Amino acid sequence: MKLVKENIENINKYEPNKKPYRIKLDANEGENIFFSDIGDELKLNLYPDGDSSLLRDEIGKYLNVDPNNIVAGNGSSEMIELVMKAFIDKGDIILSFIPTFSMYQIFSQIYSAKFIGINSNENFVQDVDVLIEEAKNIKPKIIFICNPNNPTGYLMNKYEIKKLLNNTDSLVVVDEAYIEFAQGSMVEYISQYENLIVLRTLSKAFGLAAIRVGYMVSNKHIIDIINKVKSPYNLNSISQYVGVKALREKEKMFQYIEEVKKERKYLYNELKKFPIEVYPSNGNFIFFKSEVSKLDEKLNEKGILIRSFSKDLENYYRVTVGNRWENEEFIKSLKEILENENS
Amino acid sequence: MKLVKENIENINKYEPNKKPYRIKLDANEGENIFFSDIGDELKLNLYPDGDSSLLRDEIGKYLNVDPNNIVAGNGSSEMIELVMKAFIDKGDIILSFIPTFSMYQIFSQIYSAKFIGINSNENFVQDVDVLIEEAKNIKPKIIFICNPNNPTGYLMNKYEIKKLLNNTDSLVVVDEAYIEFAQGSMVEYISQYENLIVLRTLSKAFGLAAIRVGYMVSNKHIIDIINKVKSPYNLNSISQYVGVKALREKEKMFQYIEEVKKERKYLYNELKKFPIEVYPSNGNFIFFKSEVSKLDEKLNEKGILIRSFSKDLENYYRVTVGNRWENEEFIKSLKEILENENS
Repeated sequence: MKLVKENIENINKYEPNKKPYRIKLDANEGENIFFSDIGDELKLNLYPDGDSSLLRDEIGKYLNVDPNNIVAGNGSSEMIELVMKAFIDKGDIILSFIPTFSMYQIFSQIYSAKFIGINSNENFVQDVDVLIEEAKNIKPKIIFICNPNNPTGYLMNKYEIKKLLNNTDSLVVVDEAYIEFAQGSMVEYISQYENLIVLRTLSKAFGLAAIRVGYMVSNKHIIDIINKVKSPYNLNSISQYVGVKALREKEKMFQYIEEVKKERKYLYNELKKFPIEVYPSNGNFIFFKSEVSKLDEKLNEKGILIRSFSKDLENYYRVTVGNRWENEEFIKSLKEILENENS
Repeated sequence: MKLVKENIENINKYEPNKKPYRIKLDANEGENIFFSDIGDELKLNLYPDGDSSLLRDEIGKYLNVDPNNIVAGNGSSEMIELVMKAFIDKGDIILSFIPTFSMYQIFSQIYSAKFIGINSNENFVQDVDVLIEEAKNIKPKIIFICNPNNPTGYLMNKYEIKKLLNNTDSLVVVDEAYIEFAQGSMVEYISQYENLIVLRTLSKAFGLAAIRVGYMVSNKHIIDIINKVKSPYNLNSISQYVGVKALREKEKMFQYIEEVKKERKYLYNELKKFPIEVYPSNGNFIFFKSEVSKLDEKLNEKGILIRSFSKDLENYYRVTVGNRWENEEFIKSLKEILENENS
């Protein structure tokens, strides 16, 4: 199956000037007039490095991957969009388990693709054989796997995803936004498969949602195609700078992960004590079901925000794993609400 | 003519939670673990304001426009892409004068549109009547007007653009990236026309290319459509923060504009003394033609970068207006090269 859009193939990547210089008069940039303190150091008046080179170097070290196999940009959102821009023609099919990250479906609609969702089994287990069979029948252009899955927390293991890759020609995009809280990243297999793309982010385990840094890891052929549709200066200089600094101190992240896992266990055990359905999670969140209606609004009255869902997932909720105090406050409030319902 | 893509109309805008809270466990954000100093103040661990509200407020004050008529994002690039995502179906026509900003053509290709360029007249003057006639014949979905035009510096006046708007149903996108160096913004007319979009940026006159902030001004109907295809958290928090700070000190920008205009005059007059063709410019750059081959490379050997062009624009160059020292160095080096050619 030919994956790349026809009109993309003969695009030449926009190549910004990277020659050394004494005086730069090639890009209509202005002077640094607002930030006399940090403006010069950060070169606020100049366009960012369009290749995010330093950032990709640090990501490469973190994942033990060649930086040439990496593209960085504005969050996983931009990564999902780049895949669609490069590969989706009007009417192409995008396949995924449901429930999953809602943006796959929304972007499918924006890029004029047809989104097909395969229902997860009871307890939101995802059966790879069902996915393989469905892919054989409907020949999707792209299969999205959110792993661990948001919002359910379900994790497919490497062998299942490799089985999928061995049994489909579709592009398989594994969105590993939460993988640091689990295990089984597919990054090490990017060169073994022609059709594997892994998405990652600094928004979750690195605690840097504000800077919007996401990245993609894949084989050189796919990366070259993606770079043809990427905007020349997609990622601003400050996000690149902050991302580099954080990656150079990644031990802090590894420590934080351990804390989240401990708190996730605590939260899970506490939730299990209530008359609610709790699902085991591999992310920094826990998915649960409660028959108490509008539980999110009742928690909100006590100053606590959790995520609720609509339609098929009515009465299901997702709570982020907070620190111990936040988790205790959440459990305390939940207890009050549940007791109040029964009285 | 129906402009918006069919599949876009029934998309519901992704609405992030904006309720007040004491404990935020709704978005799977992490903790601020890397930047103990500024991380908490900037809320680096939380997703940005998806609506860039404060930034849009400041832009609104700057342009005397209701913030609800504004969308902000990652540079004019994202603004151009948002227009294409919302309005371009495969095979639609995009019309523009040429030469112009090269990204209109590149994005046309990426979004499977057909780009048609109308040649400018001699001396790169753009004839609005030719454009109107061509638009009547080929019925483009979008007409892009870069005003002042990059790279030529040519400015169409308000009356010409209003004449175009009065004579076409196509969406007219006026890219005013350089308008602060000229006059005649179309922003004041956004509510008078159904089909007018104005693009602006902080990269040029504000000297903030590094933060990648661009924005769009249009009527509420178009803004609503654009918001449906915009990613939920498109612009990172720090760019929003820096943009707000700069806009609050916009007097510095107005001063800087005066300086650039003075230097542009100086540079133009100096260039006129050489045996090269110089075009009057309304931007922070000057476009010129020299028969000396590879002039850019010869200047580069002296540490000075200017922009060169290929194909039809071979032997044409664009130089950014620098400060007096930079301009003097450029003129000095150019003089040496030209004298060397003649000796």
